[in-house]
Amino acid sequence: MNIILVTKEDFTSQNSTQLNGSLVLIGTVILNDRRFKHIKEVHKAEAGDKLRVGILHGNTGLGKVIEISEKSVTLELSLTDEPLKPLPLTLILALPRPKMLKRILQSAASLGVAEIYLINSYKVDKSYWSSPVLSEDSLNEHLQLGLEQGISTQLPKIHLRKRFKPFVEDELGAIAKGSEKLVAHPYNASPCPIAVDQSTTLIIGPEGGFIEYEINKLCEIHFQTISLGKRILRVETAIPFAIAKLFSS
Amino acid sequence: MNIILVTKEDFTSQNSTQLNGSLVLIGTVILNDRRFKHIKEVHKAEAGDKLRVGILHGNTGLGKVIEISEKSVTLELSLTDEPLKPLPLTLILALPRPKMLKRILQSAASLGVAEIYLINSYKVDKSYWSSPVLSEDSLNEHLQLGLEQGISTQLPKIHLRKRFKPFVEDELGAIAKGSEKLVAHPYNASPCPIAVDQSTTLIIGPEGGFIEYEINKLCEIHFQTISLGKRILRVETAIPFAIAKLFSS
Repeated sequence: MNIILVTKEDFTSQNSTQLNGSLVLIGTVILNDRRFKHIKEVHKAEAGDKLRVGILHGNTGLGKVIEISEKSVTLELSLTDEPLKPLPLTLILALPRPKMLKRILQSAASLGVAEIYLINSYKVDKSYWSSPVLSEDSLNEHLQLGLEQGISTQLPKIHLRKRFKPFVEDELGAIAKGSEKLVAHPYNASPCPIAVDQSTTLIIGPEGGFIEYEINKLCEIHFQTISLGKRILRVETAIPFAIAKLFSS
Repeated sequence: MNIILVTKEDFTSQNSTQLNGSLVLIGTVILNDRRFKHIKEVHKAEAGDKLRVGILHGNTGLGKVIEISEKSVTLELSLTDEPLKPLPLTLILALPRPKMLKRILQSAASLGVAEIYLINSYKVDKSYWSSPVLSEDSLNEHLQLGLEQGISTQLPKIHLRKRFKPFVEDELGAIAKGSEKLVAHPYNASPCPIAVDQSTTLIIGPEGGFIEYEINKLCEIHFQTISLGKRILRVETAIPFAIAKLFSS
């Protein structure tokens, strides 16, 4: 937890003010959940200490510990800084197996991915779709853990699409419009472009890859197959690898 | 398992021959362990099928299924191709917690890392050093899983160093001699160099980072602090991210 994330609901008092032309959020929060536990046990914070805090979807700044007891911590916040901007990246993943999905969501959020679609594909095991990890609360929990790691406040938007063909035929064209359209696929592929630094839609297949029919459907709507090198990487390794290539910061 | 890895001990017959000037290994292996299970259950291989096979530390090529029963598979191998060359990268990691270490070893091996040192650091929990994951067999097992993912045959060399100071003072200078000397550390850092494509020694600290004393010791022997961006990444995310930046293929 490299940043403590709070929401509007955590505030007991709040006001906002202008400082050098930008909006500053000032207020007091009382935390008594896992964030409190982390502040107490990992930071071992005492009254007067200052911690890095952000408000979900909003500014970051400092939280001064006013009081810390066995049950809760009171922080006085001054959220003066604009948050890190998400990468202009929509990541479309064939649904990974649930255990990997958790880590992948955390990793993608920590890397600053703006939007994620989890889609079906021929080689996705059907049972994955009934995993409790796919509940809205669970998805958001893992994304939030990623933000806390990556000191971001912008929660990626996440969508589930259980049918490949209607998603690709009816929706994907509009989603990817105006962006670089890339699908990681090692056959007949160009090398991964370097530092494109513009709006990008990146599709990554399941372990075992997309089948030919699926690749053809994607190519029909102008997705370009790219290679991440001669080695075949697991999805969880391929995501940070591709993002490092595609974006220069 | 994108490649079936065999060792000399698996061969029932073997000879090598010259083909277009390079050494080709031809022979028969019988497998009855998890590799057999994978060939049977995942590949669903039948007699006559050809699978991608490599010999540990050696060539890759094809294995033709001669016979497959309930207990074993007999493959006739023709290992004609040079294996992928490892990256000229020595990765030095503050020992991660055991559960993460397994995945990190697999990921590093799949990415083609040549050599790995697991070292101590102030923020490494002492208990990690007594984990059974650190046994030679277990380390090699996880590295081998990474090779099977990344279709490589060159097992990374791995070393454990339980004391930070003597390692840095007495050994690290010689290990890193002539290479790019980089330590991922977000403070007072240069951006991560792009496509250096030469011998590199990359050090990655523990969750929570190196302490100032440790960074100073590394800088004394000419390691340069580099940043992987404004976001703080977990070690398992930072490794593929940094490798994608540092090497162009």
